[in-house]
Amino acid sequence: MVLLTCTIVNVAFPRANYTILRNEILEYEQRLMIGANLTLNDIERVANKVLMEVKKEELNVGFKNPSRYPPARNFLAVKEDIERSKVFQLLRRMPKGAVLHAHDTALVSGNYLYHNITFRDDLYVCINKGVINLHFFRVPDKSCSWELLKKVRKDPEGAEKVNKMIRQRISMECDDPTSAYVDVNKAWDKFVDIFSFIIPLLTYKPIYEDHFLRGLEELYEDNVMYLELRTTLPTLYDFDGTKYKPEDLVGIYQSLTQRFKEKHPDFIGVKLIYAPMRTAGRKEAEYYIKTMKRLKTLYPNFMAGFDLVGQEDLGRTLEYFADLLRNIGERNINFFFHAGETNWLGTSTDENLVDAILLNTKRIGHGYALPSHPFLLELVKKLDIAIEVNPISNQVLRLVDDLRNHAVRPLFSEGYPVVVSNDDPGLWGARALSYDFYEAFMALMSAHADLRSLKQLAWNSLSYSTLNNSETQKALDIWERKWHTFVKDIAYDNSQRNKQRTTTT
Amino acid sequence: MVLLTCTIVNVAFPRANYTILRNEILEYEQRLMIGANLTLNDIERVANKVLMEVKKEELNVGFKNPSRYPPARNFLAVKEDIERSKVFQLLRRMPKGAVLHAHDTALVSGNYLYHNITFRDDLYVCINKGVINLHFFRVPDKSCSWELLKKVRKDPEGAEKVNKMIRQRISMECDDPTSAYVDVNKAWDKFVDIFSFIIPLLTYKPIYEDHFLRGLEELYEDNVMYLELRTTLPTLYDFDGTKYKPEDLVGIYQSLTQRFKEKHPDFIGVKLIYAPMRTAGRKEAEYYIKTMKRLKTLYPNFMAGFDLVGQEDLGRTLEYFADLLRNIGERNINFFFHAGETNWLGTSTDENLVDAILLNTKRIGHGYALPSHPFLLELVKKLDIAIEVNPISNQVLRLVDDLRNHAVRPLFSEGYPVVVSNDDPGLWGARALSYDFYEAFMALMSAHADLRSLKQLAWNSLSYSTLNNSETQKALDIWERKWHTFVKDIAYDNSQRNKQRTTTT
Repeated sequence: MVLLTCTIVNVAFPRANYTILRNEILEYEQRLMIGANLTLNDIERVANKVLMEVKKEELNVGFKNPSRYPPARNFLAVKEDIERSKVFQLLRRMPKGAVLHAHDTALVSGNYLYHNITFRDDLYVCINKGVINLHFFRVPDKSCSWELLKKVRKDPEGAEKVNKMIRQRISMECDDPTSAYVDVNKAWDKFVDIFSFIIPLLTYKPIYEDHFLRGLEELYEDNVMYLELRTTLPTLYDFDGTKYKPEDLVGIYQSLTQRFKEKHPDFIGVKLIYAPMRTAGRKEAEYYIKTMKRLKTLYPNFMAGFDLVGQEDLGRTLEYFADLLRNIGERNINFFFHAGETNWLGTSTDENLVDAILLNTKRIGHGYALPSHPFLLELVKKLDIAIEVNPISNQVLRLVDDLRNHAVRPLFSEGYPVVVSNDDPGLWGARALSYDFYEAFMALMSAHADLRSLKQLAWNSLSYSTLNNSETQKALDIWERKWHTFVKDIAYDNSQRNKQRTTTT
Repeated sequence: MVLLTCTIVNVAFPRANYTILRNEILEYEQRLMIGANLTLNDIERVANKVLMEVKKEELNVGFKNPSRYPPARNFLAVKEDIERSKVFQLLRRMPKGAVLHAHDTALVSGNYLYHNITFRDDLYVCINKGVINLHFFRVPDKSCSWELLKKVRKDPEGAEKVNKMIRQRISMECDDPTSAYVDVNKAWDKFVDIFSFIIPLLTYKPIYEDHFLRGLEELYEDNVMYLELRTTLPTLYDFDGTKYKPEDLVGIYQSLTQRFKEKHPDFIGVKLIYAPMRTAGRKEAEYYIKTMKRLKTLYPNFMAGFDLVGQEDLGRTLEYFADLLRNIGERNINFFFHAGETNWLGTSTDENLVDAILLNTKRIGHGYALPSHPFLLELVKKLDIAIEVNPISNQVLRLVDDLRNHAVRPLFSEGYPVVVSNDDPGLWGARALSYDFYEAFMALMSAHADLRSLKQLAWNSLSYSTLNNSETQKALDIWERKWHTFVKDIAYDNSQRNKQRTTTT
């Protein structure tokens, strides 16, 4: 390629063969894109043709009517449109590898919380100063005027009132999201409020277990085979008065994962990233780090590493914790820091990117501001740090409206190590990973990005995970078999359709 | 810096001095930013302190309340907010160099068109099927039921009606711009409609002349000293029945520029970029190119070059014209192509970037899609092609909502040759260049970008112009004197304010 550059820079273009040079440039650029180094086999090529036909069709519709193009609009308003997309339907079937960036209590679609969990026994409701709270009790405590929710719901009027209140506090879904959440702060206010509502509900141990298993079920159905879950490791309760501490919860996670794997041998598993709140002071941070060390000793393979969570713009910086964090770096504890989830360049959130890299982070969560940092980009590439991109999260939390303006687009066109993840799908009515893959494929990547880009994303999600060598190899083997079935099925569907066409004409 | 990279990549960070390394990275990144190589003198440093204090203040207000931050909102809704900004007020005073990307009939603020031009003698109005048209006549023709506008306006009811209709067709300004123009196509529909309304009004020769002089006046008052104007060279009319052809119009432009320079000896001048519509077919394009060659022979120094204009997504591609354009490249005619004014990556608009570069364009208009093209970026840097960034235009025409997501941000952080321009300020109620400088400074650049970035932008605008060596030197000399006065004034104001503070306390 150096040669091509020289040709272009030094030689008078008009004398060169314009069309040849033009094609060479376009092809060279496409060879830099994510996945461009992969070679498709015959079956994959057929599947790719099917995929690219529907992609082109949907791009054309969008091009003619951009305001209706789903990625240009807030996900909360276009979920059903996406579900009608043929590209989305193909992506649902695709073995997508791993989810590497998702949070514990936001893993499951809100519908399950509403329709299943809030209809369980022993759930009590209390409306205090217009604010609804839910909690499981054998016998309700005195903190509020608790009533059994089942009983309240027996009265149609009461049912309508509480159901509406519950629905409003369980999800960001609403009719006019850009007005409801006018900016990043307003979106985060709602987002945090949902957590504060669902945590007392979810931290009842039997529910926490069901919720986690349901999350795995949703991922599995969506053809995701491995999860690295960020968790605050909240204290669970049960009716015996037991308080389940971090190490108990990790044990619960591990055994549930085991149970799930037994039921689904082609599911690779789960690892945990302990990710307490970045609002912590130094004392709390020391406690978290101590906890992390203990957990790492107790569950050396199941604990993937450490992160800090919460609205980055308003929380404490990585620099604030840097000296504490550097010390555990030596103890074989990996970091997966959120960093640069902001569009305020030059602020402390933006500079978290520097600390994340200096602290030897294995991956960066979001990295939204990264493309405006030429030197950090160079480091990320040299150090092979993967960027966990969460398109829908960034849109719903109002970093960006039209996803075609998502800041990390250049990372896809230059083949950086990116993975696409879902962050908190349950909170905005998404489910598992396919919605985010759709947005990434249709808005963050070029019209030319094809099955190779998607294959690379799946591959990245396994190879940038914390699976060890043998685990990765096993995961890739299973994934490749699934991939082969996937492309074969699409190619077969296509040949059947073609046959049918030939017969009917 | 290679050393620093090696340190970071090869050495275990925790052992290095964290704070020193962190600062080195931050400083190194800031040294890549636009203008970072400039060194400020003592007076400039004082002025910079004043500037950065107000910038920081306004960033802080925005950080606390992002939905009210002017660059995050459509310019049509926040013009007055910007005018209250202290940063904006400083930018108004700053000698900004040149405007290198602006269009002939959109140069002047709409208020002047309404309050001045539509109140002139001999202006006739006709409402045909609910659509209002204006035209100057000595004696109106039979094409419509023309009435003298002055007469219509004598009746209060008639006046209210036509005034409202005129205002609606003269500007994109409206109460709720994001609803009025839901996407790029809807915005362009309105944009094109304004041109179709004002062109019959403006192409009356005396008006065209006044309008152009007024445009220069607005730029001059805004401390812009040079203009490269894209013009379609429309046919002018007068009451003698004369039709003024392209060469006549270029002559008119030249003599008016001369007149303006005599009145304002510190105004450097104007050059023209002949920029007909990209909707042209091959025959028309051949005619345009022939015209361009003739104009270049007649006005070798005044004619800067050639471009094609109109909505790029819907117009013809550069590739369509490439063979025709390659031939004039050899005749010392420079190109200044619009290219990549889109957020559809991988489409023909996007690929116009390749053709612009292959056709040896001197600058690229917009280049919005450029940052997602790693190899084209390399070429642009090596070939030293300047990117003409028009923030407000891109926002009003709905490429991007929040300007903090403007795609070319990385070009500022990596010190690419960018110039900031205003495109069509008159059509959205802007005036001259300062509004675009405000948006660029507050949204496209980092919080750390300071007076040096602004100075570099001004310097770029002159050095990436088509002024020849001696003209550039003269322009830079005059600009430097103005710059010195500008920073001295700010430093002086500041010292006066400080004195006052000391006296009153």
